[in-house]
Amino acid sequence: MAEDSAPPVDQMALATLNDDVSTPFVKAQFSDRVLIRTILSRPDGGAGLAGQTVKVGGWVKTGREQGKGSFAFLELNDGSCPANLQVIVDAAVAPLGQLVQTGTCVHVEGLLKVPPEGTKQRVELRVEKVHHVGPVDPAKYPLPKTRLTLEFLRDFVHFRPRTNTISAVARIRNALAYATHTFFQNHSFLYIHTPIVTTSDCEGAGEMFQVTTLISDAEKVEKELIKNPPPSEADIEAAKALVKEKGEAVAQLKSAKASKGEITASVAELNKAKENLSRLEERSKLKPGIPQKDGKIDYSQDFFARQAFLTVSGQLQVETYACAVSSVYTFGPTFRAEHSHTSRHLAEFWMVEPEIAFADLKDDMNCAEAYVKFLCQWLLDNCIDDMEFMAKNFDKGCIDRLRMVASTSFERISYTEAIKLLEEAVKKDKKFENKVEWGIDLASEHERFLTEVLFKKPVIVHDYPKGIKAFYMRLNDDMKTVAAMDVLVPKVGELIGGSQREERYEVIEKRILEMGLPLEPYEWYLDLRRYGTVKHCGFGLGFERMILFATGIDNIRDVIPFPRYPGRADL
Amino acid sequence: MAEDSAPPVDQMALATLNDDVSTPFVKAQFSDRVLIRTILSRPDGGAGLAGQTVKVGGWVKTGREQGKGSFAFLELNDGSCPANLQVIVDAAVAPLGQLVQTGTCVHVEGLLKVPPEGTKQRVELRVEKVHHVGPVDPAKYPLPKTRLTLEFLRDFVHFRPRTNTISAVARIRNALAYATHTFFQNHSFLYIHTPIVTTSDCEGAGEMFQVTTLISDAEKVEKELIKNPPPSEADIEAAKALVKEKGEAVAQLKSAKASKGEITASVAELNKAKENLSRLEERSKLKPGIPQKDGKIDYSQDFFARQAFLTVSGQLQVETYACAVSSVYTFGPTFRAEHSHTSRHLAEFWMVEPEIAFADLKDDMNCAEAYVKFLCQWLLDNCIDDMEFMAKNFDKGCIDRLRMVASTSFERISYTEAIKLLEEAVKKDKKFENKVEWGIDLASEHERFLTEVLFKKPVIVHDYPKGIKAFYMRLNDDMKTVAAMDVLVPKVGELIGGSQREERYEVIEKRILEMGLPLEPYEWYLDLRRYGTVKHCGFGLGFERMILFATGIDNIRDVIPFPRYPGRADL
Repeated sequence: MAEDSAPPVDQMALATLNDDVSTPFVKAQFSDRVLIRTILSRPDGGAGLAGQTVKVGGWVKTGREQGKGSFAFLELNDGSCPANLQVIVDAAVAPLGQLVQTGTCVHVEGLLKVPPEGTKQRVELRVEKVHHVGPVDPAKYPLPKTRLTLEFLRDFVHFRPRTNTISAVARIRNALAYATHTFFQNHSFLYIHTPIVTTSDCEGAGEMFQVTTLISDAEKVEKELIKNPPPSEADIEAAKALVKEKGEAVAQLKSAKASKGEITASVAELNKAKENLSRLEERSKLKPGIPQKDGKIDYSQDFFARQAFLTVSGQLQVETYACAVSSVYTFGPTFRAEHSHTSRHLAEFWMVEPEIAFADLKDDMNCAEAYVKFLCQWLLDNCIDDMEFMAKNFDKGCIDRLRMVASTSFERISYTEAIKLLEEAVKKDKKFENKVEWGIDLASEHERFLTEVLFKKPVIVHDYPKGIKAFYMRLNDDMKTVAAMDVLVPKVGELIGGSQREERYEVIEKRILEMGLPLEPYEWYLDLRRYGTVKHCGFGLGFERMILFATGIDNIRDVIPFPRYPGRADL
Repeated sequence: MAEDSAPPVDQMALATLNDDVSTPFVKAQFSDRVLIRTILSRPDGGAGLAGQTVKVGGWVKTGREQGKGSFAFLELNDGSCPANLQVIVDAAVAPLGQLVQTGTCVHVEGLLKVPPEGTKQRVELRVEKVHHVGPVDPAKYPLPKTRLTLEFLRDFVHFRPRTNTISAVARIRNALAYATHTFFQNHSFLYIHTPIVTTSDCEGAGEMFQVTTLISDAEKVEKELIKNPPPSEADIEAAKALVKEKGEAVAQLKSAKASKGEITASVAELNKAKENLSRLEERSKLKPGIPQKDGKIDYSQDFFARQAFLTVSGQLQVETYACAVSSVYTFGPTFRAEHSHTSRHLAEFWMVEPEIAFADLKDDMNCAEAYVKFLCQWLLDNCIDDMEFMAKNFDKGCIDRLRMVASTSFERISYTEAIKLLEEAVKKDKKFENKVEWGIDLASEHERFLTEVLFKKPVIVHDYPKGIKAFYMRLNDDMKTVAAMDVLVPKVGELIGGSQREERYEVIEKRILEMGLPLEPYEWYLDLRRYGTVKHCGFGLGFERMILFATGIDNIRDVIPFPRYPGRADL
């Protein structure tokens, strides 16, 4: 069953099947198999391909032997779509017992056929040749055929993409990522890679992860010192004495006008002694433990010669590019070292952060609304089968929600109006756990009430009290509020937070000091206001929140491939 | 000059100008300005737009007063393209002295006009209204008009995107990133976000950055202990005595059948005493310094309850998805804590890593070749003006190189053939610094000789000796080589490294042990071979290397927005 001996597959037929993914350069799929999606996603469900010989590969979802073991049905999935291809193998072609186990990998070749009437499938594959089987011992495989909870699957992050739910999430996540790039590229934004390791300790380091080589360096030194103890003072004195002795020997030979050969040999010995001494002196400086200076950790010895952290946001850094090439965005991982054990927080998560020059808060809201609508429409256009799976299994309303958001104007209300509306609701007996009054930060229950109950559509709340917002948000003329905005959507509440940035040097300097922050770490940020300052704005979208919103899945740990949270970072 | 009082700009005209970036949802550019690129990149150089009123914004590259100070010429750039728009301002419209300084930000509105014959420009803007000026004090601005070296600019990472070179690099980098996504999406690969924080300590942790909260937690404890010293033993004894006393009081009242009120009050006092004791006992456990256990750091107290690092590659993790959804890629930051001070190494850099199931080394090479060609063609199609800038200023041959790579079949030779060719060259008096013999890892000088001198085109070297390659590469039938491949290109040498992965459980287990690695950390990776194993392959492309290759720029620190290397992590 070696690959080499396979009869030549009709390459043209394959090329046609894979046509939707062809490029000017590549006719093949970098594999001789056909994606199951290219068969099943045709308007005719693949029936029109009957008669074609194809190779497919995938993992068996379920399998069963039939006709007293004379043949087997396999439901085969290759991750290209939620649907499985029905595959029929005769006992004469391969031993069936191995093939039917859930999780088995098969790479097979055969004829596409229209199945007998009365079956669900529009097309099935009758196998003529089995090229490879990756077997599974069902007694040991951690993913049995039974329905598994998402919580159970978190203990098997390396296998869970083989499940219907996690693979559908992977396709939706992939689609949203490419939609993000496409949206911003279509609008001439440049994708900027902001740094992951940062020395800008923004708004207090309490919640940041530290990046360091000090501990591993210290461990290396300790190991080395155990293996090879540091020289004693006596060792060093002896080495010094040897240098002196060898030096005198050289001097003696020189004054005795000894032969060149003798002198050279003697000088060589002196140099050896000197090298030995300096090596010992160097080693005597080695100290176990993390280097200290003046009672504090000596970060000048750390890799970056100063304390370094994992970024919590690329915004401040991407502003340097907005203030030079005008429309930019960053899309990358960000980190919080918070001990939150909720279904909405991760220690490592992805953020999309556009930043637009020559634009104000209204432009910012326009961009945020257009972007969210674009994402929703993209899923409707490109992932409807996965969305149907989600609607069936997790959230009946998720497709309607996407349609509504894609087609409805977002409500825009000021924070002050929002507070009034919430106060009116309280008067009409609506109960909130958190008190409503001007000046509070809106709680999730308030946000969801506004978007889910009151307006039944996305709501943008703008112009928040300055006391609850960051120093970089632009102070409004009322001197009480800042040009901030949050986009609230049904199901998750806050999806986006943004603002017009304070571009006036004197105002932002005052705000930093008012908030009790030091100026020094922000000098570079202030420089952007000192030299060629520009009106600009931006926002951040929590990428996992967007996936929760789209899919209706409840726990954020299930919408990122490798979730990191307190006590857990598998793989 | 408030924004509000501006005469209404012809929105339809703007929409037309920005047509190339319109989407079904968005007619505006999220700013009322027109991108300079949409004016100057027209086939007529913008001349056909004469007579239109537009708003533009940007930073002054150079400015000069003319006609005895009656008007000024400004060369305005907004980062949307390398070309500047010529802007003319009359002294009656705005004070000219401020406008002409290099680095000044201006947001202006005016009439597009065809300039007098004999000038370089095809169109210029005559300003009617100045909406905003972000001034620059030329005595303090760190970027004077003079030509600056890239090395000098590294000290001003927050300003360097305002230079022609760094903004052109930003546009090329952006184009290559989007081309990467487009290529893999076109081929039905799913983009998978592999983790940045990892607990898989692959191939020895020596070169990895550690991610930890232990140091900051220890610092918090130390601060806290200084502010509020831990209880002495006497304090605790006193608290214990108080608990005893209050307990006895309760017992006494109960046996004396005191009133319910009296007993309740007494129990409350007992509980208070108990709480106080447990708080003191908790505090007495606080110890300064990093927590230790059995003479080692106690990582169970770290954020992830074990030692965690920054990833060096997403490959192993992305394989879990390839072994479930078949064609995947990751594109994200990776890290090396190496003390390399070369022009080719960064501590933080980006990698593109596709992984393909049901595919072998030949498929891998096909994919790598198609991808590199696609990137080259994309730059020729989308960034020709930036490439012309690079050709003029950095590398005369860079455009020809892109054309050659996009259109030429890559040479494919085995490692054994490569060694033979190098040995033949040595016989013909070619001098290498590193010895050539079967078994060596090819040095950069060998790689560049093969691609630049011998074949004068990209070369894929495949089937390397197993001794110089990683444990996960598939062992060939000769038992001496593995199914690895490197793509070598002129100018940078190795651009891509890849391999078919070892899918046979027994073989990979043996290879891990042979290399002296422990099995335990790889159990999840072995699981992929234990259950439903599949033939698969993949590769990694160093994204910054690709930019060096494309632009001809020499130092890798100049092709990433925020370079991180030993001793340096600005912002």
